[in-house]
Amino acid sequence: MEKWFTEKHSDTINFSIKVSKTLFSTQTKFQKLEVFENEELGRFFTLDDYVMITEKDEFIYHDMIVHVPMAVHPKAHRILVIGAGDGGTVRELCRYPYVTHVDMVEIDEEVVTVCKKYFPNSTSGLSDSRVHLYFMDGLAFIATKKNEYDLIIVDSTDPFSVGEGLFTQSFYKDCFTALKDDGILVNQHESPFYEHYQKNMQRAHKRIKEAFPIAKVYQAFIPTYASGHWLFGFASKKYDPIKDANFEHWNSLNLQTKYYNPALHIGSFALPNYVIDLLNKE
Amino acid sequence: MEKWFTEKHSDTINFSIKVSKTLFSTQTKFQKLEVFENEELGRFFTLDDYVMITEKDEFIYHDMIVHVPMAVHPKAHRILVIGAGDGGTVRELCRYPYVTHVDMVEIDEEVVTVCKKYFPNSTSGLSDSRVHLYFMDGLAFIATKKNEYDLIIVDSTDPFSVGEGLFTQSFYKDCFTALKDDGILVNQHESPFYEHYQKNMQRAHKRIKEAFPIAKVYQAFIPTYASGHWLFGFASKKYDPIKDANFEHWNSLNLQTKYYNPALHIGSFALPNYVIDLLNKE
Repeated sequence: MEKWFTEKHSDTINFSIKVSKTLFSTQTKFQKLEVFENEELGRFFTLDDYVMITEKDEFIYHDMIVHVPMAVHPKAHRILVIGAGDGGTVRELCRYPYVTHVDMVEIDEEVVTVCKKYFPNSTSGLSDSRVHLYFMDGLAFIATKKNEYDLIIVDSTDPFSVGEGLFTQSFYKDCFTALKDDGILVNQHESPFYEHYQKNMQRAHKRIKEAFPIAKVYQAFIPTYASGHWLFGFASKKYDPIKDANFEHWNSLNLQTKYYNPALHIGSFALPNYVIDLLNKE
Repeated sequence: MEKWFTEKHSDTINFSIKVSKTLFSTQTKFQKLEVFENEELGRFFTLDDYVMITEKDEFIYHDMIVHVPMAVHPKAHRILVIGAGDGGTVRELCRYPYVTHVDMVEIDEEVVTVCKKYFPNSTSGLSDSRVHLYFMDGLAFIATKKNEYDLIIVDSTDPFSVGEGLFTQSFYKDCFTALKDDGILVNQHESPFYEHYQKNMQRAHKRIKEAFPIAKVYQAFIPTYASGHWLFGFASKKYDPIKDANFEHWNSLNLQTKYYNPALHIGSFALPNYVIDLLNKE
């Protein structure tokens, strides 16, 4: 019998992936975790029935959550990553030779254990000596930090699941405090299309705007996320994501990327009118 | 019992929309044509089980296929539209006061009849006195035209259905001949993500490049098309889609658009590296 994994993109829209193999399935302390294989997407894993990464398109999400702020901050040495159990964000960060220290705080240790086994590519950076892993609540971790990081990346699940606390006002304020004077916060910012996601996106933007003097939103084509139109939040104490981007420096690093490039960096901040309107409304 | 419409985005990926009402269903002379209603997307219609337009996101496709070339051509008076039975492309064209003549050639008259009934918004331009409707094969129509149009828009179905002939080399050459010396051809260009679409995109680009001195590709977020990452081809005898865009003029027209804006126009040509690689490969 055929097996399909289905994610509800909305109450009345289903996205279904034919499962050629179920590799793993468990209920962790926090969430349902499953690993599957599909002919076109390769391996993919899900948390509470939401697709987290697929081998075919994870490079898009990870390129955009890492290289955009790294091309703006002149020298991000100390970085905090919250969530990101699949390792892809840390893998991309570790490609920068001048990064000296990455704290990664993931609430669910089992996600990392399972991803290490089934996604050796995306987890390849986790063994880097600059990376320090903490298995605890990101909210508790960040509450103790002051003026410590150049960049914070919030690579969380959705606000309607375990990631809920990472979309609150007090969390964004703690991020502000934990950042140095020229620090940058980037977070995954949900999607503008389906009503349910739209509201979360608007709420997140409103809260970030209240905590940071500069708060912009950028976008990427992520085919396996709801609507394929995914947003990221770029919040900063000082740097503008376009005016302060140093592409000459970024190009000199000679990083090969499959999605990101400087022209696309600029283009990703050019939002459609309806998205601008939604963000301004809140 | 629940009814769902399912489009296969690939052999192993299904996109399913819950049908709250089936409004119409027929087999025309050319294809299966159905009209449904969904809670989130509103009304939508399908041809041979592919979503053509939904009320919720049709504005994205039509903004991008019309306003991008219209912002580049200094004064497009005579325009040919091939396909486009839902009327949305003509609706957008008719908003330009200086357009004097639009020929629209749709092979399947029933698509227009049905859309007029169920999609009064998208078909609202079809009664404009500047619009001339021809129900015939676009290939036969264009073969008789020389040096006649400022802009040709190919708003077709996919190359694996009725639209097949509109992706051939001889058709692109006929477009070249039918265009004036500074003419522009824009076509829907499939999607870069799923393998099946990828190949069609590569083939189309290769053929257009052989027929036109300038051949660029741009992109839009269209949530109800496969992968949500949709491409358009911009081919031209003279004008570059960015250097020759006249946004001052376009802004002076005061058109209200829900998706398109000048910054996004530029950003839409900033393709991800993997798409650039695919286009260069062919």
